[in-house]
Order: sequence, then C-alpha cells, then structure tokens
Amino acid sequence: MYRLGIDGGGSKCKAVLSDITGKVLSEATSGPANPVRSVTETTSSIVEAAVTALQRAGLKPNLLSRCVAGIGLAGVNLPQFQTAMQQWQHPFAACHITTDLHIACIGAHASEDGGVIILGTGSSGIAVCRGQVTEVGGHGFLVGDVGSGAWMGNAAVRYCLEVFDGIAGTGTLFDALCAQTESHNAHTLAMRYVQAQPSVFAQLAPLVLTHAKQQDAAALSIVLQGANYVNRLAQRLLATGINRLSLIGGISPLMQGYLASEVQAHIVAPLHTPELGALLFSQQHTR
Amino acid sequence: MYRLGIDGGGSKCKAVLSDITGKVLSEATSGPANPVRSVTETTSSIVEAAVTALQRAGLKPNLLSRCVAGIGLAGVNLPQFQTAMQQWQHPFAACHITTDLHIACIGAHASEDGGVIILGTGSSGIAVCRGQVTEVGGHGFLVGDVGSGAWMGNAAVRYCLEVFDGIAGTGTLFDALCAQTESHNAHTLAMRYVQAQPSVFAQLAPLVLTHAKQQDAAALSIVLQGANYVNRLAQRLLATGINRLSLIGGISPLMQGYLASEVQAHIVAPLHTPELGALLFSQQHTR
Repeated sequence: MYRLGIDGGGSKCKAVLSDITGKVLSEATSGPANPVRSVTETTSSIVEAAVTALQRAGLKPNLLSRCVAGIGLAGVNLPQFQTAMQQWQHPFAACHITTDLHIACIGAHASEDGGVIILGTGSSGIAVCRGQVTEVGGHGFLVGDVGSGAWMGNAAVRYCLEVFDGIAGTGTLFDALCAQTESHNAHTLAMRYVQAQPSVFAQLAPLVLTHAKQQDAAALSIVLQGANYVNRLAQRLLATGINRLSLIGGISPLMQGYLASEVQAHIVAPLHTPELGALLFSQQHTR
Repeated sequence: MYRLGIDGGGSKCKAVLSDITGKVLSEATSGPANPVRSVTETTSSIVEAAVTALQRAGLKPNLLSRCVAGIGLAGVNLPQFQTAMQQWQHPFAACHITTDLHIACIGAHASEDGGVIILGTGSSGIAVCRGQVTEVGGHGFLVGDVGSGAWMGNAAVRYCLEVFDGIAGTGTLFDALCAQTESHNAHTLAMRYVQAQPSVFAQLAPLVLTHAKQQDAAALSIVLQGANYVNRLAQRLLATGINRLSLIGGISPLMQGYLASEVQAHIVAPLHTPELGALLFSQQHTR
C-alpha cells in the first residue's frame, strides 16, 4: 500500500506520494483543481498529479488502486461541492477529502493542535483543537476576504478614485498606483477596475504594502484596517484553545508585522506543506 | 416649435413636452434608457416616450422634427457612450445630450447655481457654478458608490458574516437580516450574496437605516461611515462656490439626518424634476 497527499488549488494541484510508513517517494504537480470552478477538471487534475507521482517513483499507474489518498480542496465545506466530490468514482483504494484549509493546518502543525490563517488573494482561517475543527472568514471577494490581497487592491483603487474626486489627500501610493495602471483620471481608473476579478485587484497588494512600509498615510490606513480584521480572526482561532498559529499565503510575510503583539506571540512557521498535511490527513483515517 | 425634456434611466425613460415658452403640454414614460446597457434600447425608449408625449398633447408624431430635445443619460460622461449617442440619427429638430446628474441639478435649482447628491442604488454628486460643471463620486459598485443603498446592503452582509464567524457582536440588524434573507449560517448567507448585483444589495438598505434609527450599533456604524463619505462629497461640491444642495434618490430622506450640520445647513428640496431639468437644459442651448 501507498499514501497520496493531494493539495488542490485554483492554479495547480500538488501531489506527494509516500510508502505506508510515511516515507516520501516522489512529488508531482498538475493543472487547476478547484471544484467550485469545475468538478471534472478537479478530478482529472488529481488523477494526473497522482499518476505522475507514481511514475516518478518508478511505479506503474495501475497502482493508484493501492493508494490511500488524502485530498484538500476549496469549496468542499459547501454541501453541493462536498456531495459532488463524494460521488466521484475515484481510482484509489480509499479517498479522504477535506478542505484546503484543513490540510494546510494539519501540515503546518504536523497533525497537532494549531491554527492557520491564509492571506493570499482571499483570506480565511482554521483551528484544529482536540479534534474540533473551526473554520472562519473567507466567503468570497464580494462579501468577505477582508485583509486579503484582493481586498487590499480594491481598497487602494477606491482610495485613488477619491483622490481624483478631490475628497481624499494624495500621496505616494496614489502616484505609484496611477503610474502602474496608466490611469490619468478617475474614468480610466474606474473603467479598468469596475468589473475586475479578485486576482486582478490582488496584483496591487504589494504596492499597498510597500507604501505602507514607507509610511504613506493611505496605504498604512488600508493595511491597518486589514490587520484589524486578521487580528480578530486570530483571536477567534486562539480562543478555541490552540497555542500555535501559522500565517501562510502570498502577503502573509508582509502583513505579520502589523498584527497585534498578543497575536504575533503565537505565530510559528508552518512545519510542513499543505500536500504533506493531506498525506497526514490520510493517515488519521487509517491508523 | 416645441421642447422635449428627457430623463433616461435604467428602469424607465421619462419625457415632458412643452411649447416654446416652456408651458408644459404633456408627460410620458417608456422603458429603460441607459446607454451603458444598450444604446439601441436607449434611443427607442427616448423616441417612444417622445411620441407618446406628443400624442397625449393631441399632436402628431411627425412633429418630432419640430421638437428641440434636452436629454439626460447615465454614462455619457464616458467617451465611448458620448460618441455613440452623438452618432445617433435622431428625429428631432435639435438634440442636446448631457448626464442624468446634470439635468437633475438643473431641475433641482431651476437652472441656477447649485449641487445635487444622488443616494439611490449608487451614489454620486454634481455642482454647477458659474457655468462650471463638477461631477464627483459614482464609479460603480465594485470600486465606488460609497454611502449608496448597494454599498450599505453589502456592508450589512459583510457584518452578518462576521457575526456568524464569531468576530463581531450580534444585534437587531443581524437578527432582522438573517430573518429577511432566511439565512441560518454563514454558508447560506454567503452563497446568496457572493455574486449578487448592486440592486440586490440595495434592497437591504432600508433594513440598515431602520436599525440605525433604533440605535443598533452595527447598523449605526455602517450608516455613519456612509454619511462620512457623503459629507466629504458635499464639502467638495460646496467648495466650488454653490450655496444650494439637494439630496435625491431612494435613501436620501433617511440619510439626511446623519450628515454634518454644516452640510445640512445648505440642503434644499429640489425645485423641479430631472425631466424638467432636461427641458431647461434644452433652453440653455437655444436662448
């Protein structure tokens, strides 16, 4: 028997293969695996990554039937995607599916109690304490994801439009954002972003964080507003009884310094990757 | 010769017909006239409303060629829609097109200097002072429209998700919004609004305003944040030199009480409707 840890994501799917003792044999990556976007694409990306991992370990693809898979995916906390994935006629010996957040948390704390906050294009948090799983935040760009890269970029565009309208003070963030987006007035800036996707807003987050560090008042105000939300997420997770908290995702290194000292005191680097967390998750079900 | 005042809008198009002295002969309404959505629909709604107005005054449709039209439309401040409308082979003797905000302002102050702030599904402001037109705010739901009904409803949904997540305190707004939207947890609420249109969010604005009046802390905080933005818009408009400011749009009566006293001191009821403003606009061009 073998074990597979799978970390599905919007841009790629990562797989890690181990023997039954947990010794890693190989790793592989395939295409997008987000069931919210496409269940079919998700299942084929999972199988592709798993087959590639087997081949890289010098094993035959038909050994999928001797793999116990642990899989982390976005959206499977929602009933419709959970059901869709459960109905999948998978090729594995067994298949245990949970959220992407959950495997990240299991990986970060090597199956021990702990919490994770993801600050990337979106934002969300999870704590695992004495077998109890608590998931908070997320909810999508339009109604949640505060403190995330997309939220930050959106706040920056809103601020720049207020400067063009003469109702907010100018500054280095305004100058830099207008230069980067080639916007010379409110109309060009608004037309560019009025229907933009979260990932497009998130591209502006590094600019906001850079200018916050350089003490631009508007950038700092946006970052501190995001940090306030992340602090509340963190306090909520710590209140479940955990002591360890990891920040992961693209903007987390730059956000950490803005968090409350009582939150920072609990922050630790993740011990393992999410895909290794998925491997550990498969073990939890078959020990 | 006759005059036509046309107020195009996303849900309907209003027309008012007068003789050359400005004496109103008839009024009429037709379908949507928002060039941002459809230029073809806009021009046919305008012609339909105009023809109906002629008929109601006992005049023949072919007298369109003896009408000077003043038309207010959304989006014509943007080059592409301005060009599209200018290329229209209209049936009138002459046709003068400006923004919906502009005709509302001309109507509200009977062609004299003054300003208007629209607080409906969206939010925006205009001032006309000594021939100088200043338009601020708007920009669309995703990057602007702060203080509007859509913005307010969105803020309320965000707040309720924070209550479900245990990171914000509950209150009467939370209870009322969950009851009205039949949401019993974060997932049902998020799924309902994660891709909602501005008009859907705006339906929640009366709830927020009602609970703000009843001193619900979260509702009051949302309304005061919106009022802060509207105050800044108003101060920007007053700084152009105007003394009169009118608030129009669905939520304006309920928002007025939250504005700064120095802003409220300048607020006056509009003298005329936007369609009458469009009629006055046509006169400005042919006096």
